[in-house]
Amino acid sequence: MVEKYVYGTPFETDAVVVPTDCKNGHPPIGKTDIENGYTWTYTMSDNDIVYGLGEANRGINKRGYIYISNCTDESNHTEDICSLYTAHNFIIISGEQHWGLFFDYPSVISFDIGYSRQDLLTVHCDSSDLNVYIINGKNAYDVVLQFRKIIGQSYIPPKFAFGFGQSRNGYATEDELRQVLKGYRKNHIPLDMIFMDIDYMENFKDFTVNSESFPDFEAFVNEMREQKIHLIPIIDAGVKIEKGYDVYEEGVAGDYFCKREDNSIFAATVWPGRTHFPDFLNRNAREWFGKQYKKLLDIGIDGFWNDMNEPAIFHSDEGLGEVKQFLREYLDDTTDQFTTYHLFAHIGTLRNNPKDYTRFFHNVDGQRIRHDKVHNLYGYNMTRAASEAFERIVPSQRILMFSRSSYIGMHRYGGIWTGDNKSWWSHLLLNIKMMPSLNMCGFLYIGADLGGFGANTTRDLLLRWLAFGVFTPLMRNHTTRGTRAQECYAFEHPEDFKDIISVRYRLLPYIYSEYMKAALNNDLYFKPLGFLYPDDDIARSTEDQLIIGNEIMITPVYTQNVPGRIVYLPEDMLLVKFSGKSTIFTQQFFAGHHYIYIGLNEVVLFIRKGHCIPVAMPAETVGNVDSSTLTLFGYNGASYDLYEDDGISKNYEYSQKYLRRLSKTEQY
Amino acid sequence: MVEKYVYGTPFETDAVVVPTDCKNGHPPIGKTDIENGYTWTYTMSDNDIVYGLGEANRGINKRGYIYISNCTDESNHTEDICSLYTAHNFIIISGEQHWGLFFDYPSVISFDIGYSRQDLLTVHCDSSDLNVYIINGKNAYDVVLQFRKIIGQSYIPPKFAFGFGQSRNGYATEDELRQVLKGYRKNHIPLDMIFMDIDYMENFKDFTVNSESFPDFEAFVNEMREQKIHLIPIIDAGVKIEKGYDVYEEGVAGDYFCKREDNSIFAATVWPGRTHFPDFLNRNAREWFGKQYKKLLDIGIDGFWNDMNEPAIFHSDEGLGEVKQFLREYLDDTTDQFTTYHLFAHIGTLRNNPKDYTRFFHNVDGQRIRHDKVHNLYGYNMTRAASEAFERIVPSQRILMFSRSSYIGMHRYGGIWTGDNKSWWSHLLLNIKMMPSLNMCGFLYIGADLGGFGANTTRDLLLRWLAFGVFTPLMRNHTTRGTRAQECYAFEHPEDFKDIISVRYRLLPYIYSEYMKAALNNDLYFKPLGFLYPDDDIARSTEDQLIIGNEIMITPVYTQNVPGRIVYLPEDMLLVKFSGKSTIFTQQFFAGHHYIYIGLNEVVLFIRKGHCIPVAMPAETVGNVDSSTLTLFGYNGASYDLYEDDGISKNYEYSQKYLRRLSKTEQY
Repeated sequence: MVEKYVYGTPFETDAVVVPTDCKNGHPPIGKTDIENGYTWTYTMSDNDIVYGLGEANRGINKRGYIYISNCTDESNHTEDICSLYTAHNFIIISGEQHWGLFFDYPSVISFDIGYSRQDLLTVHCDSSDLNVYIINGKNAYDVVLQFRKIIGQSYIPPKFAFGFGQSRNGYATEDELRQVLKGYRKNHIPLDMIFMDIDYMENFKDFTVNSESFPDFEAFVNEMREQKIHLIPIIDAGVKIEKGYDVYEEGVAGDYFCKREDNSIFAATVWPGRTHFPDFLNRNAREWFGKQYKKLLDIGIDGFWNDMNEPAIFHSDEGLGEVKQFLREYLDDTTDQFTTYHLFAHIGTLRNNPKDYTRFFHNVDGQRIRHDKVHNLYGYNMTRAASEAFERIVPSQRILMFSRSSYIGMHRYGGIWTGDNKSWWSHLLLNIKMMPSLNMCGFLYIGADLGGFGANTTRDLLLRWLAFGVFTPLMRNHTTRGTRAQECYAFEHPEDFKDIISVRYRLLPYIYSEYMKAALNNDLYFKPLGFLYPDDDIARSTEDQLIIGNEIMITPVYTQNVPGRIVYLPEDMLLVKFSGKSTIFTQQFFAGHHYIYIGLNEVVLFIRKGHCIPVAMPAETVGNVDSSTLTLFGYNGASYDLYEDDGISKNYEYSQKYLRRLSKTEQY
Repeated sequence: MVEKYVYGTPFETDAVVVPTDCKNGHPPIGKTDIENGYTWTYTMSDNDIVYGLGEANRGINKRGYIYISNCTDESNHTEDICSLYTAHNFIIISGEQHWGLFFDYPSVISFDIGYSRQDLLTVHCDSSDLNVYIINGKNAYDVVLQFRKIIGQSYIPPKFAFGFGQSRNGYATEDELRQVLKGYRKNHIPLDMIFMDIDYMENFKDFTVNSESFPDFEAFVNEMREQKIHLIPIIDAGVKIEKGYDVYEEGVAGDYFCKREDNSIFAATVWPGRTHFPDFLNRNAREWFGKQYKKLLDIGIDGFWNDMNEPAIFHSDEGLGEVKQFLREYLDDTTDQFTTYHLFAHIGTLRNNPKDYTRFFHNVDGQRIRHDKVHNLYGYNMTRAASEAFERIVPSQRILMFSRSSYIGMHRYGGIWTGDNKSWWSHLLLNIKMMPSLNMCGFLYIGADLGGFGANTTRDLLLRWLAFGVFTPLMRNHTTRGTRAQECYAFEHPEDFKDIISVRYRLLPYIYSEYMKAALNNDLYFKPLGFLYPDDDIARSTEDQLIIGNEIMITPVYTQNVPGRIVYLPEDMLLVKFSGKSTIFTQQFFAGHHYIYIGLNEVVLFIRKGHCIPVAMPAETVGNVDSSTLTLFGYNGASYDLYEDDGISKNYEYSQKYLRRLSKTEQY
């Protein structure tokens, strides 16, 4: 049962695509107050778990903190951070009863889930113009499946996007990228993608390529493609202000940029210096911006990542002016009224200042809307612009696309990566916990920067993180400027990295099948244990193990200096351990707690009783994975439906055409 | 076996107090290189654990990162932070063989423990003037005991310091403190101490009391004492520059402050504004500064905490001058050569700038020594100044003293708290892991800010943290300006807090006994599991459980939204669970893994086979704990040596005079 409650005059976000019955009054649970903005309160029982919120901080169970949907370029994801890059306003309260609530509201909205008072859930936004969808289900999983149906089918990337990719903010030349490829191929560490961060561009101008470092980019794209490598460039939201730069000139001429109240074009400084922000909420601007991707598609690029689209602001013209004014007063001051604390406080207002988000406007079907009112839709609509353009430009081809900022609805147009994490063990754990929550909100093609983006990684952290990354649809090693070398071959004993990443390719038939089933059936790829074992208290509170599909449970190691970890099996399961040198070891375990030894070069998974999974021979690229020589691991008598298609066209469907039933007849 | 290797002309730190044989040449293990500074390298075996480094970041096993001893006022203890407030240069390598190494060197020294290469340990400092002590032992525990003997007996606080204390950076008036006491007493939550952060002073001037907010401080101290509360004021390192302020005037007149190269007194800005730094490395200055504590001792104060003694620097005169110069150039710039990144970078040089630590000098027995050469001894010698003064002023009385910055050797003069942590679950875990490492370096009176200092805590985090804090010698709830109320009575159901903190008082006879035994026998209060179960792989890598004394193992919960946790028992043990309403529940468990339910108002410990512990009746203050009505919990036939003394005089000794043997004759 899905019910919709309309308050005031909501902005149409297009998050929900299936018409839903509108109800009068208020939802049957909790208390609704629309006196001062919108406030919904609910008293939680001790046993209630609150799931959801997609890419939010902290646990799978969101109880015990406050979360604020307010898309922010926040690079320090410590436990006290309330806002990350996305706005995924869907929660599920699961205890005696099971309710889902989607607050379809495009501006700042807060979820106090037992922070102010341990048993109180309060959802609040300043305006009472919103759509609230309420879903009742027989369990949390059922609620999610109902929600997923109304928000439409998740994005499906090309199959190569399930390969492993290497990235660094800093790769600047053809030769650097060639060296990366060489390092991987020489060590026989599988690789399908190299990501190009901002340096490939000419002065960080979108849809340009630096002609000094890439003298013949098209030839280089082909050279890489011959070596089975897809180059995946970044596209940032802001368009550099530069006379003669075609995108800038077209944007001005076509009136495609966001404007100030006085109708001048708003300017904010980001990587390229001063930029204008395309008005992605305007369909003409979307169409225009989307067309730009053609420049790169035409020379063979088949994947992109959209970044800085919260939008991030280093500073606006106005903000910098105010700070400079303060600095003058500070320097001229003879009365000691200012300390360096004032200095820090003022400088601190430059980046992502809420005030700046009130300084520009969108033109939506002729209606002028101040940005802060629809802030959380910006990245979503940038990615929608790209995706809608791909549909026009290469209608039959899947293009890889993932974004940093997003809102529910964007899951139909692309995936996401979880932004600028750090090389912290705690962020490996955060990565694990975010995955099922993102699936609940429709985002299936997801992954974190493996090894950590900021700070220096260590060999063991990268290995452990990759061993988890084996299971995330987006599997990318990415780091930032100034950190130590993070490519797998940069560490001693690269064969250990080969061992780990090879498991990804051995499991590719399974991972791809499960992804396609989840996408085509509006189902989950990652599930919390509580979704399958709702009556098991321990399973319900276990957040460091995940279910994938219906067949396996993964138990990643996320602690340094340990020979293994304790795992909890809610039922009897079969351990499958991929060890160095392509050895696969299996062992039956009874339900309960077990200490499992897991070496740095090993990947462990558990097959659920009565299930089996296909395992391929090792390969170095997605294209070389041979699905004709699969071995089934698991329980005798079990069968598995393998999904196979061409991996590139859009003729996917959940039907016998693409499904092949494999049956396990021998033991293990 | 302890051997000492002397390189060059070491600065005498007084860390080691027992004369040690000097050896020629180099230590028998590792490789020593004194060509460019001092470098010691050692190739670690897979099985080696590296213990030690006291208050350092990350795990009990220090492998897999780089640690830099460089006392720093660093308030953001994320995983990538290499330097905290202290310099505890003692490591133990424990595998096939067991070696301890103490690098007695007072300036910056780095420990790359498998960061650059996973199997390589590299210790490096820029000068080859240092003492290196090498200890060989039969196991890690034995190595530590040998080390503890040569660095002298650990500080012993008065018994009241084992009570619970409340603190906040922000308490400013008598009435605020009265309200705090009232909140605790009304809810019958035990309390023995209220800590006074910087606001009690007049303009942050050391050894002054704000006469507006504390019109008759002596009377107030007595009023609190009548209610069994000890007030514990903070003392900061920097002395405010203010004409007429006696400490400033005396310091200038006596030549007790650190000087610039040109012999002018160095000035740096900290909380009080511009300050001078007492030259704590100079014995005359120490004596002078120590005397100042008498002002507060004389009116009944019997405990202090020394802060900001790395020393923290908000900015120096020189540093601020340089930044202002840049700001002028920045504002005048018309060539666009500066971005706001330059602005951030320059402003960022103000705080704790390494350059500033080269800008002032100490006078050590007539010898002028640049501060950076002896930087890590500053907080140590501030606390030594206080302790040596207490010895003169109140020779027979124990005074509570703990410091933020320290070096090994300071453990004889006071305890430490672990600085400005955050209200993060990961910092509760960090707190757990730091404790045994600190004990290895001699620091026994230790604790973290329970609930977390920075950021907003939650009710459940505070409860879980307190449940661990029950076992830390210093048990203090402390938070900073601008955070939500963190006093235990500020949350719903304060009875849960009463339940937890009451356990501290029920266990006080045990905790105090174990503390005194550890201090008097140069032993450990906290031990890693690997110290007692060195042949048990799982125990060796378990860092979220600790042994206290010889009797108990604790298994704190440090995860949100869980009904309990998995514990590992290396041997059969007896669970003792303190539940709400003073219920004590016991249950026998076999060795192995078990899921133990632990409610938010419960404290769990495990008694080792063959041992027992005394438990008192609940009490609201240390003075009211009745040691005549103790109940023994544990194994039949076990006995326990209770240590009892007056808790305030210095007539402590490990002898029959103070020991009382209790024998357990009934089951549980």
